[in-house]
Amino acid sequence: MLKVGIIGATGYVGAELIRLLLNHSKVTIEAISSISYEGEEISSIYKNFYGVTNLICENQEEVIEKCDVIFAALPHGLSEEIAELVNKNNKILIDLGADFRLNNEYEYERWYGKKFLYKNLHKSSIYALPEHNREKIKEHKIIANPGCYPTSIELGLMPLLKNSLIKLDNIICDSKSGATGAGRGLTLKSHYAELNENFSPYGIGSHRHIPEIEQCLSDIAEEEVKITFTPHLLPINRGILSTIYCTPNKEVNIKEIHKLYCDFYKNESFINVLELGDIASIKDVKYTNNCNISLHLNHRGDGLIIVSTIDNMIKGAAGQAIQNMNIILGLKETEGLKLVATCN
Amino acid sequence: MLKVGIIGATGYVGAELIRLLLNHSKVTIEAISSISYEGEEISSIYKNFYGVTNLICENQEEVIEKCDVIFAALPHGLSEEIAELVNKNNKILIDLGADFRLNNEYEYERWYGKKFLYKNLHKSSIYALPEHNREKIKEHKIIANPGCYPTSIELGLMPLLKNSLIKLDNIICDSKSGATGAGRGLTLKSHYAELNENFSPYGIGSHRHIPEIEQCLSDIAEEEVKITFTPHLLPINRGILSTIYCTPNKEVNIKEIHKLYCDFYKNESFINVLELGDIASIKDVKYTNNCNISLHLNHRGDGLIIVSTIDNMIKGAAGQAIQNMNIILGLKETEGLKLVATCN
Amino acid sequence: MLKVGIIGATGYVGAELIRLLLNHSKVTIEAISSISYEGEEISSIYKNFYGVTNLICENQEEVIEKCDVIFAALPHGLSEEIAELVNKNNKILIDLGADFRLNNEYEYERWYGKKFLYKNLHKSSIYALPEHNREKIKEHKIIANPGCYPTSIELGLMPLLKNSLIKLDNIICDSKSGATGAGRGLTLKSHYAELNENFSPYGIGSHRHIPEIEQCLSDIAEEEVKITFTPHLLPINRGILSTIYCTPNKEVNIKEIHKLYCDFYKNESFINVLELGDIASIKDVKYTNNCNISLHLNHRGDGLIIVSTIDNMIKGAAGQAIQNMNIILGLKETEGLKLVATCN
Amino acid sequence: MLKVGIIGATGYVGAELIRLLLNHSKVTIEAISSISYEGEEISSIYKNFYGVTNLICENQEEVIEKCDVIFAALPHGLSEEIAELVNKNNKILIDLGADFRLNNEYEYERWYGKKFLYKNLHKSSIYALPEHNREKIKEHKIIANPGCYPTSIELGLMPLLKNSLIKLDNIICDSKSGATGAGRGLTLKSHYAELNENFSPYGIGSHRHIPEIEQCLSDIAEEEVKITFTPHLLPINRGILSTIYCTPNKEVNIKEIHKLYCDFYKNESFINVLELGDIASIKDVKYTNNCNISLHLNHRGDGLIIVSTIDNMIKGAAGQAIQNMNIILGLKETEGLKLVATCN
Repeated sequence: MLKVGIIGATGYVGAELIRLLLNHSKVTIEAISSISYEGEEISSIYKNFYGVTNLICENQEEVIEKCDVIFAALPHGLSEEIAELVNKNNKILIDLGADFRLNNEYEYERWYGKKFLYKNLHKSSIYALPEHNREKIKEHKIIANPGCYPTSIELGLMPLLKNSLIKLDNIICDSKSGATGAGRGLTLKSHYAELNENFSPYGIGSHRHIPEIEQCLSDIAEEEVKITFTPHLLPINRGILSTIYCTPNKEVNIKEIHKLYCDFYKNESFINVLELGDIASIKDVKYTNNCNISLHLNHRGDGLIIVSTIDNMIKGAAGQAIQNMNIILGLKETEGLKLVATCN
Repeated sequence: MLKVGIIGATGYVGAELIRLLLNHSKVTIEAISSISYEGEEISSIYKNFYGVTNLICENQEEVIEKCDVIFAALPHGLSEEIAELVNKNNKILIDLGADFRLNNEYEYERWYGKKFLYKNLHKSSIYALPEHNREKIKEHKIIANPGCYPTSIELGLMPLLKNSLIKLDNIICDSKSGATGAGRGLTLKSHYAELNENFSPYGIGSHRHIPEIEQCLSDIAEEEVKITFTPHLLPINRGILSTIYCTPNKEVNIKEIHKLYCDFYKNESFINVLELGDIASIKDVKYTNNCNISLHLNHRGDGLIIVSTIDNMIKGAAGQAIQNMNIILGLKETEGLKLVATCN
Repeated sequence: MLKVGIIGATGYVGAELIRLLLNHSKVTIEAISSISYEGEEISSIYKNFYGVTNLICENQEEVIEKCDVIFAALPHGLSEEIAELVNKNNKILIDLGADFRLNNEYEYERWYGKKFLYKNLHKSSIYALPEHNREKIKEHKIIANPGCYPTSIELGLMPLLKNSLIKLDNIICDSKSGATGAGRGLTLKSHYAELNENFSPYGIGSHRHIPEIEQCLSDIAEEEVKITFTPHLLPINRGILSTIYCTPNKEVNIKEIHKLYCDFYKNESFINVLELGDIASIKDVKYTNNCNISLHLNHRGDGLIIVSTIDNMIKGAAGQAIQNMNIILGLKETEGLKLVATCN
Repeated sequence: MLKVGIIGATGYVGAELIRLLLNHSKVTIEAISSISYEGEEISSIYKNFYGVTNLICENQEEVIEKCDVIFAALPHGLSEEIAELVNKNNKILIDLGADFRLNNEYEYERWYGKKFLYKNLHKSSIYALPEHNREKIKEHKIIANPGCYPTSIELGLMPLLKNSLIKLDNIICDSKSGATGAGRGLTLKSHYAELNENFSPYGIGSHRHIPEIEQCLSDIAEEEVKITFTPHLLPINRGILSTIYCTPNKEVNIKEIHKLYCDFYKNESFINVLELGDIASIKDVKYTNNCNISLHLNHRGDGLIIVSTIDNMIKGAAGQAIQNMNIILGLKETEGLKLVATCN
């Protein structure tokens, strides 16, 4: 059994990695770390692990030393040093933070306020969206796992962009996310009595997923893509639904578009293109690594609406990270990820 | 005290009218009707009225006979006959249904599948959005109260359209509504275990508010306005938030746009234009007749994003209906509607 | 207009006091204070007050100086010094905290870990549950407003205790409260993703409302009453529902008990004794100062079950405080409190 | 692979059986049935099964004919005929309804309003709570799977009753359940806008789980046990938490009680006795077959409070049914049921 470790194990994404990896038959969680909870059992922090695992939070260095594959689930800005250490030890890093997502240092500085620390590591890392660049991922050892919103949007638009079917100057991405996306850190915005029975956008025009989405979409289209992106906070625990508005280059036949999507994704285990008439909803992908996509026209028939939905904690974070690990290790891509959504 | 009556009193909108009118100091609820519950006390149907009112559901004819102003809160298709009767009796009808919202019979038939029954009544009726056409409303006795989604969108766009500041060929309206908007009728979509922890769009390209929105926006702009409208169902009870995307005709200065909105709405009791930097949220308007509007630019600065939020049951239905009644009766527009949102 | 002030205005209870007092026709809010937000507008902290009030947070001394009636909505341990100052200035204090609720200093020390600071003030203060001791309240100037859980339980049991109808050695009080009861302070327990879709008891055997409930019930019964009290946290914003189990002294006739309750509360504006067969629910009292009570037998007919429900923020805090103020000032008890619950 | 079938596959419990059995490595779902949806794919009814299974609803007879083990998830009153047919075919029936839960025909008639149809089948059936009577279950072919509330209460009290430590004349069981417990059938009580932000008890003194609980507790205690049971409906999807109040026979040492529970359940895979000081909560068992139990004293130390929590759809229905199947088939009891609760 291959040994994997998790740095930042006590955040929501770290805990989800533990939960999913406990059911992975080819790897074993050898070590986990947490700065805030070093020395404590994970089952005393997350009671759902009571009776399930005895893992104790160690420090980062121990995790890197003991494991072959290291997952880092940390706030941005903390992964570069880890990557340097992992790299020296010739191990594999799957980074769920933002440090290696942007290729352009200028953009990184603009949106994150700091420069690249180890430029060479950035060159040898890859933004790993399996459905887009699976083959290239295999050759890398520093993996930038995509953000949650970007995953939903990039998968939703990929077939159109690869086939140059839409205008690229202003794709509207109106996204809505459950509360786990905001993490375990206490904020007034995530205080129960504030978020419950409430709904609103945030970070309009300033959310750090914007450059990531534009970079990946441009990479897919092989041309500059411009978006408008508005994230909203939903009073639910999990799930992202992105409603994407774009304008076709020429007259649209929705059945052809639908066929294109079905063909494009026909070998993908985690992508469901719904039948025409059906509408994607968060419930049907919750607790899975799936992305459900439905396709629609506006009432005049001159605008395309794509609805793309994922579980932000799984396909939008921990699940996709495991999918990327499976790819790198040459395992079956669905290993540990054959999850069926609950009916309710 | 003027006598008012409510036809369709046992639906959510009817019950909300009762609740609000009980606190109105210039009118008294003289009679209510319900087909399903004729003869029953409203307080046995809605327990929140226990000890508050002894109103008993009668039939429509009695309501019309006894009252000076009649509110109709019915599914579409049932108000025309009522209007005919109200008109004959020379009384006032405020219709919260869709029967009198569309001026164009062709459009009405296209979206609602039926023709106008009494064409003359349609001519003498008015689509009554006070902030748009307050003066004209005063002269009418058949009032089409705007739909909930349309209200949020029309108020959000009015200052831009009146000043010809944006392109009219495709305004994107991404709207989200709480569950009361779907009414009290039982459906799987509104079954608790189905909607809770879920989120998705519905009626894409086919929602009947589309022609209403386009008609009103075109009326405001005095030019044809085309929209793409996608409604979504939120797992909350009340509130609508519309995120509206439009493209300025010329370079945008957000401060000027903000000033324009503030000036435009400065005498309006129910419209709050938030300060730049603030973002409208459902919580702040819940249980009020207010519409809160916030203004934003996308990250490139070339796209405008307007966030407009109302309580779908109040400014989106019962509250606006009372506002319209106040206007017609020459009362203070805020009478019975000085509602302060709860903090939680 | 009498001048009232609120110390601790930026907590949930303080904000609810503002909201309710803004609609009170006989008093005006002259000043508010907050340690954390001194100098800030309340409408910048609670956006629902935007456009409604321009009140600015001052300091405590200013509030006491400017106002005739002072409400204190503070964590326990902070009200005694305020009471001393209010007393010296011969004004009225309505304390929504716990400092003056327990008469017995030994009990206070046992549960709160500190002694009385000003013993004489405790003697001249009163635990003010209007339905129990309305007449006495009028003579006092330091008012201990009851806790939220205690209010629901005391009102639920009063008619039985006054008539010596039940055993007093172990009344089971199983109470459930919405999240606002835990306040605005950030805790993991109130973090959205933790509380949502969750439910559990807390403070079993140790909640500080226990001695308060036992003291008041014993005072009502004029004999020692022993309870077992378990509070639970509900994933809703507002409302408390207490399910109370007690054993009759003799054979029970539920119709007689029901008649007893109806007679006992027949002159009370805020207490609704539901008809036999109906069951009290939180929804029907939310956003009101009401307490709804329903009466039941267990399946053997030998045990009484009382369901008592209030809005924890209103009858359980701000509303009852205003009711107490009305009593002291000789105003109509319902002034500012004629609130109708929403249907949803 | 053994063939299993599900009759009543389109209710919530039936669908949960499908979801769980799809991950069972020793059995395969051979057929499912539904009266309402005969001929339809399950994935068109529950979209979460899209791309996961092609099962089509057949009729009952086909399910019985094709399968070795038949699960029936039907409203009460429909299982006896199925049992007769299964019995004739010498197959195994695991009934998730109430038809075989009560041994006493008089009680059955009192609570369900009908007599036993096949008395001999009742004699050869067993009420199957594995932690109570695992060995006996193995010898039976008609299995009455316990109800959801009863499971939580029986597991919570078993160690006390087996050791005669508490008074049996009136154990108070205050239970709270999520909305899935009410099923998929549309009712006003489960309408989103009615249940959301609401909470109340129902079926006080009349819920049909009462005789089941008293029968099983009496069977465990080998003496008549009397309870008072009050179920409440929680605004969450899943989970039951029962707060159980009982009085010890003699002075209580909570540490000894705790040790007793730990010892009693030490070999049980699905029962977690929490450490003293911890409190059971629904979140920690959601989506698992576990029952978490925490033990508490009231503030006087003379009353025991047991908090017992399960997922009503799993340990309270589908999971326990699979556990019972595993027992009968001689499989590992945890097969298909190694589920880890999500952190949120």
